[in-house]
Amino acid sequence: MANTHPLSQIKALTFDVFGTVVDWRKSIAQEIKSVGIAKGFILDWNGFADEWRAGYGPSMNKVRTGEMGWANIDTLHRMILDSLLETYNISSLSESETQCLNKAWHRLDPWPDSVEGLTYLKENYIISSLSNGNVALLVNMAKYGGLPWDTVLSAELVRHYKPDKETYLSTSEFFGLPIEKVMMVAAHKNDLKSARSTGMRTAYVPRPYEHGLDVEVDREPEEYIDIIADDFVDLSKKLTEARETGFIPE
Amino acid sequence: MANTHPLSQIKALTFDVFGTVVDWRKSIAQEIKSVGIAKGFILDWNGFADEWRAGYGPSMNKVRTGEMGWANIDTLHRMILDSLLETYNISSLSESETQCLNKAWHRLDPWPDSVEGLTYLKENYIISSLSNGNVALLVNMAKYGGLPWDTVLSAELVRHYKPDKETYLSTSEFFGLPIEKVMMVAAHKNDLKSARSTGMRTAYVPRPYEHGLDVEVDREPEEYIDIIADDFVDLSKKLTEARETGFIPE
Repeated sequence: MANTHPLSQIKALTFDVFGTVVDWRKSIAQEIKSVGIAKGFILDWNGFADEWRAGYGPSMNKVRTGEMGWANIDTLHRMILDSLLETYNISSLSESETQCLNKAWHRLDPWPDSVEGLTYLKENYIISSLSNGNVALLVNMAKYGGLPWDTVLSAELVRHYKPDKETYLSTSEFFGLPIEKVMMVAAHKNDLKSARSTGMRTAYVPRPYEHGLDVEVDREPEEYIDIIADDFVDLSKKLTEARETGFIPE
Repeated sequence: MANTHPLSQIKALTFDVFGTVVDWRKSIAQEIKSVGIAKGFILDWNGFADEWRAGYGPSMNKVRTGEMGWANIDTLHRMILDSLLETYNISSLSESETQCLNKAWHRLDPWPDSVEGLTYLKENYIISSLSNGNVALLVNMAKYGGLPWDTVLSAELVRHYKPDKETYLSTSEFFGLPIEKVMMVAAHKNDLKSARSTGMRTAYVPRPYEHGLDVEVDREPEEYIDIIADDFVDLSKKLTEARETGFIPE
C-alpha cells in the first residue's frame, strides 16, 4: 500500500534560525564580554544579550505595521545597540568597533547537533533557513558555523517579517512546491502556529537552553504541530520513520 | 606593503549557470532523446536542444520590455517547449510527461571541473549562482549535480532578468558588500560587460563545448574582463595568486 501520510510528501524543510539553529544568547554574551574586557567595562553579559534580543520583536513590529519603512535586521540590530550603549553609558567604542560588535549576530555558534542533523536531513530534503535575519547575515553565519543550507531564504527577499504570512508562503513559490510539502522547523510555538495557518507542515524542536540554564521548557503537543523532536538528529530519524512506516513516532 | 589590488578585495563570486557551470546542450539533448526512444520519434536531438535554448532570450526580452508580466524560467521554458512540440508534430506526450521534460532544465550535468573548482573557491569566497533560472530550478540543479553554493541568487528574487542592472546590483544588497567586492563569473562576454557596467569585477571562463565540439571559442581579452581562466580550478589558482602577490596571472 502506498504511503499517503502527509509527512511522507514533504520535500523541503525551512528552519527558523535564532534560537532554533544557533545559540544566540551565549554567543552574543561572549562577544560583548570580549569588548568589555578590551575596553574596561563590566556588566551583566547575559543580561545585555537578553536586552539586545528583546528589542528585536518591537523593532520588527514597527516595520510590520508600517510605522517604519523596510529596514533589514542589521539595521534594526544597530538601532537597538546604539540605544543600549547609551543606556549603559558606554562611549568608548569607535564607529568601526560598533559595526563589528553589531555583526556579532553573523557569528553565532550552532547548537551541538545542528550541523550533524542538517547534514542528515539534506540527504532527503531541500533544507533552507526561513529567518527574519537578512541574507548577508544568514550567509555569513552559515560560513562561520558550517551550516550546509541548500539555499538561504529570508524575510528580506519578500520584505515581510515573520509572522506575516507572505514570508511563509514564499517558500512554496521559491521551491515550486505546494505549501503542504514544506515543513517549518522551529523552537518557538508561535512561529509554527503562524506557519501552519498558511498550510505548512510543522516540526517543534524545543531548545531548553535558549534563554539560559534554569528556564522551564514547554514540551506540550499542540494541534498545529506535526512532530516534536529533541534535536535535528532526532528530527531526521523521526522523519525517516514517518516516510517509511506512515506513522509519526512519539 | 599591503596588497591593495582590487582583486584582493573580492569577497563574493556570483556565477552565471547555463553554459558556465553546467552543460545544458548535452543534458537537454539526452533528455529529449530518451523521450523520443520511449515514444517512438526521432529528430536531431542537439538541434532540438539548440532551438529550445534559442527561444530563451526572446521570451525573457518580452518580460524585460514589459510586453509580458513577470514569468519565471520554468514558465518560459514551457511556452517554448509547447511551441516546439507543435512544430515537430509531437502529440504523444501526456501533460505529466511534458512537465517532466520541461524540468530537464533542473537536471543539467556540471562541467567536469565545476564541483571541484567551486569547492576550492568556497574556502575563500562566498559563492552563489546569479542566474536567470528560478530559485526552484537552481536549488534542484544544485542537489542533482552536487553544486556547493553558499546560497542561490536568481533574477527571480528581484524580478529582473539579466542583463537588467537590478539583477547584478542585487548581489551588493544581498551580501552587504560594496559592488566592487563582488565578481561575476561567466562564459559569456555580454554578461560580463553588463556586470562590469554596474561596478562588479569580472572573470571570463570560456566553455569551448557549450555549443558543440566544432565551434571556435573567443579567448580575446577585453577591457571589462579582469581575469580569464581555463576552468574553475584554474580560476581558484589565479585568484589565490592575485590575492597573495597583487598581480593578475596570465
